[in-house]
Amino acid sequence: MKGVTVRESKRAEILDVAASLFADMGYSQTSMQDIMDRTGLTKGGLYHHFKTKEAIAVAVVIEGFAMDDTPPQVGPLQAVVDASILLAWLTPRVPVVKAAARLGTDQDLEKTYGYLWTQYIPAVEKLLVQAKLREEIKPGARPEEWCFAWVAAYTGVDLMTRQDYESLPRKIATINRVFVSGFATERALAELDMRAERGRELMERSPWARQYLREAAPQASEAPR
Amino acid sequence: MKGVTVRESKRAEILDVAASLFADMGYSQTSMQDIMDRTGLTKGGLYHHFKTKEAIAVAVVIEGFAMDDTPPQVGPLQAVVDASILLAWLTPRVPVVKAAARLGTDQDLEKTYGYLWTQYIPAVEKLLVQAKLREEIKPGARPEEWCFAWVAAYTGVDLMTRQDYESLPRKIATINRVFVSGFATERALAELDMRAERGRELMERSPWARQYLREAAPQASEAPR
Repeated sequence: MKGVTVRESKRAEILDVAASLFADMGYSQTSMQDIMDRTGLTKGGLYHHFKTKEAIAVAVVIEGFAMDDTPPQVGPLQAVVDASILLAWLTPRVPVVKAAARLGTDQDLEKTYGYLWTQYIPAVEKLLVQAKLREEIKPGARPEEWCFAWVAAYTGVDLMTRQDYESLPRKIATINRVFVSGFATERALAELDMRAERGRELMERSPWARQYLREAAPQASEAPR
Repeated sequence: MKGVTVRESKRAEILDVAASLFADMGYSQTSMQDIMDRTGLTKGGLYHHFKTKEAIAVAVVIEGFAMDDTPPQVGPLQAVVDASILLAWLTPRVPVVKAAARLGTDQDLEKTYGYLWTQYIPAVEKLLVQAKLREEIKPGARPEEWCFAWVAAYTGVDLMTRQDYESLPRKIATINRVFVSGFATERALAELDMRAERGRELMERSPWARQYLREAAPQASEAPR
């Protein structure tokens, strides 16, 4: 927390607390009073940072999907696979990421609904276009179609797995196999690492994830069931 | 409505009305009072059929996903494609189907959450296993993995498209292309019809869909934008 002002640190605490509530109970079952109770803030104190519950949800979603912008040390197709594996490891472990997944797919919440895929689709498509230029992708395959289907499949798997979230990395490894086997050239396929277990190494390599998990959730680096 | 009792017809009307409300406003924003207002039923009249709003939601989801069990006159891979295209045409047009998609992916609703994919995954897997026996599928491809990924992708696309639902058939045609191109043998691929426009013919061929759309939503057989 070096160099972080009191105001920033209080804001971060509100987001952490609200994220845990949103992740576990959902948006509609979480009240501003719940957030005050858990943070110990007065109404004035909370409203100083956020005017509405919706504003907190928006901030949680934006924070939850702040992608680690360290340039990957791997090819573009491996980078897509890595992004999905890392996200699948972080989602059950980091409340703000877990809450973002839930809020970003809650159709009752217009301001956050869809934030998830509007962020990911352009990023994934850019990587798949690079992969095509590097001949990691079969000549007939269209990056924009695969990108759309892949992000949709990730979103669907995340939704389908919420009641057994520890299985997310394993299930994402399954969809990665399906997508890459239909899409990648034999040569690229032979070089890719798509194991769910790779997520543990990726968490260690991501400066953001490493710092977060050490400070805020030291138990979270344990193996999933 | 021949041979339908008053009780059944009143129950069907409640489900139609509730489905429209759930589809447009979501579960949490729809009240039993709204359903009474729109059906003209008294509290006693409504509660005679359904004790809780949740019970209505459960009935809507089950009715919305009652699959047409007419045996398909096509191969198993075409049957999977057809099921997805038909569903993508019906969802924006039939309130009970539209509501089922929304309620079945609303994590706040434990009793309906996940009904969608627990129904579809076994049905799709059965067809893909048949497709494999008929050599419509590449030797290395595993039906259970493709089935899981395909249903997840459909679910994700449905979710991603709710604010522009008329585009659903076109977007489902995109994911079908991706899945089938990575999965089907060249021979099977040459024979498949994956056009979004096929949905119009499928609606005409489905006895349930044809009857429903003629009676309840004659405007719904028009072309999507």
